[in-house]
Amino acid sequence: MTSEVLSIGNEVLSGRTLDTNFHFLARLLEEAGARVIAHQAVPDEAGAIDAALKLAFTRSDLVVTTGGLGPTPDDLTVSAIAKSLGLATHRDEAVIAALKARWALIGRGGEMPVNNEQQALVPDGATTWVNPAGSAPGILIEKGGKHVVMLPGVPEEMRALAKQSLAPWVRAASGLTVEYALVRTVGIAESVLEERLSDLSTLVGGAWVAYLPGLGGVDVRVTLPTDADADIRAGLAARVRAIVTERAGDYVYATDERALERVVLDLLGVKGYRLVVAESCTGGLLAGRITDVPGASATFDGGVICYSNSSKVALCNVTELTLLEHGAVSEEVACELAVGVARRFGAPCGIGITGIAGPDGGSPEKPVGTVHVAAFAPGGMYHRALRLFGNRAQIRERSVTAALELLRRRLLGLPATSPGALFTPPATP
Amino acid sequence: MTSEVLSIGNEVLSGRTLDTNFHFLARLLEEAGARVIAHQAVPDEAGAIDAALKLAFTRSDLVVTTGGLGPTPDDLTVSAIAKSLGLATHRDEAVIAALKARWALIGRGGEMPVNNEQQALVPDGATTWVNPAGSAPGILIEKGGKHVVMLPGVPEEMRALAKQSLAPWVRAASGLTVEYALVRTVGIAESVLEERLSDLSTLVGGAWVAYLPGLGGVDVRVTLPTDADADIRAGLAARVRAIVTERAGDYVYATDERALERVVLDLLGVKGYRLVVAESCTGGLLAGRITDVPGASATFDGGVICYSNSSKVALCNVTELTLLEHGAVSEEVACELAVGVARRFGAPCGIGITGIAGPDGGSPEKPVGTVHVAAFAPGGMYHRALRLFGNRAQIRERSVTAALELLRRRLLGLPATSPGALFTPPATP
Repeated sequence: MTSEVLSIGNEVLSGRTLDTNFHFLARLLEEAGARVIAHQAVPDEAGAIDAALKLAFTRSDLVVTTGGLGPTPDDLTVSAIAKSLGLATHRDEAVIAALKARWALIGRGGEMPVNNEQQALVPDGATTWVNPAGSAPGILIEKGGKHVVMLPGVPEEMRALAKQSLAPWVRAASGLTVEYALVRTVGIAESVLEERLSDLSTLVGGAWVAYLPGLGGVDVRVTLPTDADADIRAGLAARVRAIVTERAGDYVYATDERALERVVLDLLGVKGYRLVVAESCTGGLLAGRITDVPGASATFDGGVICYSNSSKVALCNVTELTLLEHGAVSEEVACELAVGVARRFGAPCGIGITGIAGPDGGSPEKPVGTVHVAAFAPGGMYHRALRLFGNRAQIRERSVTAALELLRRRLLGLPATSPGALFTPPATP
Repeated sequence: MTSEVLSIGNEVLSGRTLDTNFHFLARLLEEAGARVIAHQAVPDEAGAIDAALKLAFTRSDLVVTTGGLGPTPDDLTVSAIAKSLGLATHRDEAVIAALKARWALIGRGGEMPVNNEQQALVPDGATTWVNPAGSAPGILIEKGGKHVVMLPGVPEEMRALAKQSLAPWVRAASGLTVEYALVRTVGIAESVLEERLSDLSTLVGGAWVAYLPGLGGVDVRVTLPTDADADIRAGLAARVRAIVTERAGDYVYATDERALERVVLDLLGVKGYRLVVAESCTGGLLAGRITDVPGASATFDGGVICYSNSSKVALCNVTELTLLEHGAVSEEVACELAVGVARRFGAPCGIGITGIAGPDGGSPEKPVGTVHVAAFAPGGMYHRALRLFGNRAQIRERSVTAALELLRRRLLGLPATSPGALFTPPATP
């Protein structure tokens, strides 16, 4: 089954919004067994939508659209696609009832504006899918053996609908079960991983290897041949995980979907330790990532955002002398933060982060990107001096990843760094 | 001048790589005066490239391609586009000389492989642009009054060539400067805004209105006619901002690009106040958003992530009695957090957030999505009880937005809520 995505909306085309919807859908469709062969993006204009759909149907069995399902007049995806396919439309009573129920539920008060009923416009003969994260339903249309699926453009709503309804439908329609092995790494470069795994496709015949770099590390995602039966595929997946883990060594933090923060929380849970954090340059991002994990409160107590020097002293027990002698961005302050915040909360584990995220505040000795992370746990303290590159947001995210990775290594008794790790200390101290 | 972008390459389509090239080019083209009306992405296949180019030329004056200019056999953009346009190609001696010079310069040693001369393939009659960041040149072709520009797919090379050669060329060719008016709102529904502004295009002839919803609110972005002269356009932009501000009232937080957190920091700066925060359910996200703003340290001192009850008491001066009588998720605790954290840091302004982000932890009286935010500043305390919908991430992000908005209202002396605001308290207390 071939597929393509049609993004509809002016905001994407103006460059004002980065369209991450296609990227998400491409992965979801591939995993469900529909090869993605093209992407188009057009404005909220019936003519442009019609031309794009006609081109799409010359090559694709399934066209997934995103956007243009809102309640305003420029949202015309449904009417344009119905017209292009020669279908009439109707206002779906069940959808209107659901919209009104949602309006009352979220307590906006009063009657739902009649405008909003536009979201109940559905082509005749279409199937609607309930939106678990918003009002506009997903819409599935069959036409001459080909299919169009319309999803909202708001990423949360699109993702929720795609996972809940599109993926199962594609899996059923494609008749394929794509099997993957996922191995997640942190601290090793994509090119090094690629070199170490260059023979993987030969070792496991038919395996297709993808390297997915992100701010949190590099994922190795191996797609396995789909014509083998389930037992054989499961065996191949186990073999792939074993090979990748052997080659990538202790850079591997998970052989499943768990994020690094989740892995760290799970390790803490097993040991019965509680964690707190003290963040300067990351300003809450580390705690934010930890508390993204549902149930984090079982092992995470909180922490201090000590942006000012006085708060480092008053709330995290950093001494004035240390600040004076070494400066706020130093190994000493990072370590005092980790211990100090742990004592303050009465927790056995603490993380301290201090650094210069930029764009200002750098100096020749401590340029932008200089970050110290410290992880304190029963058994002792680990520290790393980082020299990170990128913009403010990248430096902050990478600092968070490095701190989590350092605590993972501390909890597992691994060395604080591995040879050739990505977060290397500066050449000159 | 209308334009579109054609991304060429298999890696983007598999969902393996997030294509940020289009986003970059769309902004660059718009700013240079070429309205972007479509985006297509196709694999490295001559047939797909031909079909995409033919569709593009039915609607666009300028087509900018990215990708497929490398030295390997799957890089066939130049030959496919030349064929589609009916042009012969040649190996350009000047480009070959530049490639050889670059090969020597970056010290790869030895003779340049003959393969690499493929990057000197140029359609007859084309103009080449020197690549300041790599080897493949940019290529400009004119055909029947329309133009194709080919750029490399490597983001650094594409960006360097686009800035150095494409943007000046488009500016000269379009002779236009595009003018926008942006008004940013929070707390008002997109459909309500749209109703209030339904006559805007009539009031300001030729204005084109877009509504851009996000977790932080809804942006109204108005594109103004480009054939008027600069003074008239500036006057129209001011008029649009005035009309939208009058209609949307105190839901407007900015008439420029500033984010809500930046607006709040600016207000604090003007008043000479410093801010600290105490976060329970948002677990650092509020501080994380505030410290995304470069220079936040001028007015932001930090805060406490008080995920556990004991940390609410120990670090934010919440009383045991309040926790016992009202529970951790209550108006009383939110207010004690805001005051307590302010006192603890010696800051005049404090924000407190406590709530249930889910998926677990809800009860019939306090379901998932129940959140209390409090903003304390000279003049007094504002509090709001929220009943938010969505998943854990959405509830957390919306809580952060509501807290920032509450402090903005407190600092400006606006009422804590406006009639019909999105973040309304639950119907039953």
